Amino acid sequence: MGDLAGNMRKVESLLGSAKVNGVDVLVLPELANSGYVFNSRDEAIGLSEEVPAGPFSKLLQTFSKQDRLVVSGICEREGTNLYNSAAALGNGKLLATYHKVHLFNREGEWFLPGDKEPPVFEYGGFKFGLMICFDWAFPEMARVLTLKGAQVILHPANLVLPYCQNAMITRSVENRVFTATANRIGRERSMTFSGVSQVTSPRGEVLVRVGAMDEGLFWVDVNPSDADDKMITEYNHVLNDRRPMIYKRLTRVS
Amino acid sequence: MGDLAGNMRKVESLLGSAKVNGVDVLVLPELANSGYVFNSRDEAIGLSEEVPAGPFSKLLQTFSKQDRLVVSGICEREGTNLYNSAAALGNGKLLATYHKVHLFNREGEWFLPGDKEPPVFEYGGFKFGLMICFDWAFPEMARVLTLKGAQVILHPANLVLPYCQNAMITRSVENRVFTATANRIGRERSMTFSGVSQVTSPRGEVLVRVGAMDEGLFWVDVNPSDADDKMITEYNHVLNDRRPMIYKRLTRVS
Repeated sequence: MGDLAGNMRKVESLLGSAKVNGVDVLVLPELANSGYVFNSRDEAIGLSEEVPAGPFSKLLQTFSKQDRLVVSGICEREGTNLYNSAAALGNGKLLATYHKVHLFNREGEWFLPGDKEPPVFEYGGFKFGLMICFDWAFPEMARVLTLKGAQVILHPANLVLPYCQNAMITRSVENRVFTATANRIGRERSMTFSGVSQVTSPRGEVLVRVGAMDEGLFWVDVNPSDADDKMITEYNHVLNDRRPMIYKRLTRVS
Repeated sequence: MGDLAGNMRKVESLLGSAKVNGVDVLVLPELANSGYVFNSRDEAIGLSEEVPAGPFSKLLQTFSKQDRLVVSGICEREGTNLYNSAAALGNGKLLATYHKVHLFNREGEWFLPGDKEPPVFEYGGFKFGLMICFDWAFPEMARVLTLKGAQVILHPANLVLPYCQNAMITRSVENRVFTATANRIGRERSMTFSGVSQVTSPRGEVLVRVGAMDEGLFWVDVNPSDADDKMITEYNHVLNDRRPMIYKRLTRVS
């Protein structure tokens, strides 16, 4: 918590390991620059940075220059606003930033919620979508990303509830997409994070799932195009079979 | 398949057992009167009935008269239209009928899809919602039912894919509702049904889950009011935290 320099060193070492191992898409956890459990908005501001001008963003940018995509959670300052953000950097460029839409627990005391659809961007001929941690609990988010064309949902997280890993299997199945959840481990002040980072496939397979205390770099080879097959049976397409007229209540603003 | 009289006898015996055991809410599988695997629309018509005028409906109605709620899948004929329906009968009255919205596999060759929101009805001071089988794959459905006030989702099924039971845990967690899936077992013509009927709680607990070949009556005592607590954390309400403006894409009709 709050150890900006220590977090930088740890991430730098992970990035080095990712390079050595030829990882070309890397997901880091939520708020990887700052830590999660703030005591006040002022504390959070002191641990935030501008994206992509800040030092943590620059570190990611350097890594991304050699044909790599990296997505990380960042405590982001934009003017006087603070966001729980995910930034995607590929080939040295900022490809997308996402401001977390569904704020968890006390986050609303320091962060503003995002007010835009989660982004989908192209990298290496494939389409990636971003969501952060607690967004898992809102099936609307993975659905929106899929309708926007995401083949892979990259999902930085600092999870504390026990439901997400299982739910992400369902997100994969109902949308026929890959998901990659990078979760944090260990304790910080009052909270314990649940680890168990994982990657799921459009068929609901768990391709990688690490332990609750496993720290490090884990990967799997996938072909994102597998997510283009939306047929869950010979007759059923998970998107075309949707009945938006019947879902009208979902977008009513009360 | 197609053994109307045999199906009636089997259901009658189950209803008897439910009475003896004091079951007050009973869910039967999808298409419990007719069987699932039709070869033609004509065959399906021959095995259909009007609801609640038909003999299978009348059997359910009689059972429901003594302070009971029963929900069953029925192959329903309405004029010249056929529907894959769920009927809810309580205290001798038809409380709700639902025409399956998301048709599975070849169902569209004989059934018309429903074109209305899934229903929520009151019984015994509690609110129940209906969906059928493949509706599990569309998170929009359980969400609509929850937004309409359902505390318990009753879910007749004839499942063949392996994902639903796990997905229903997620439906429970993301909506903080109970779900009860009554699934079929065994083989019929070309299809094998996966059994594993279950009941899940608003906290994602599996309260009952039977085996893939278990046939019979299984129950659990629950208090549907537990579903009124929508707080997934001290700060997060699974419905009030929704951001409908950001979900607009979900109800776009292309």
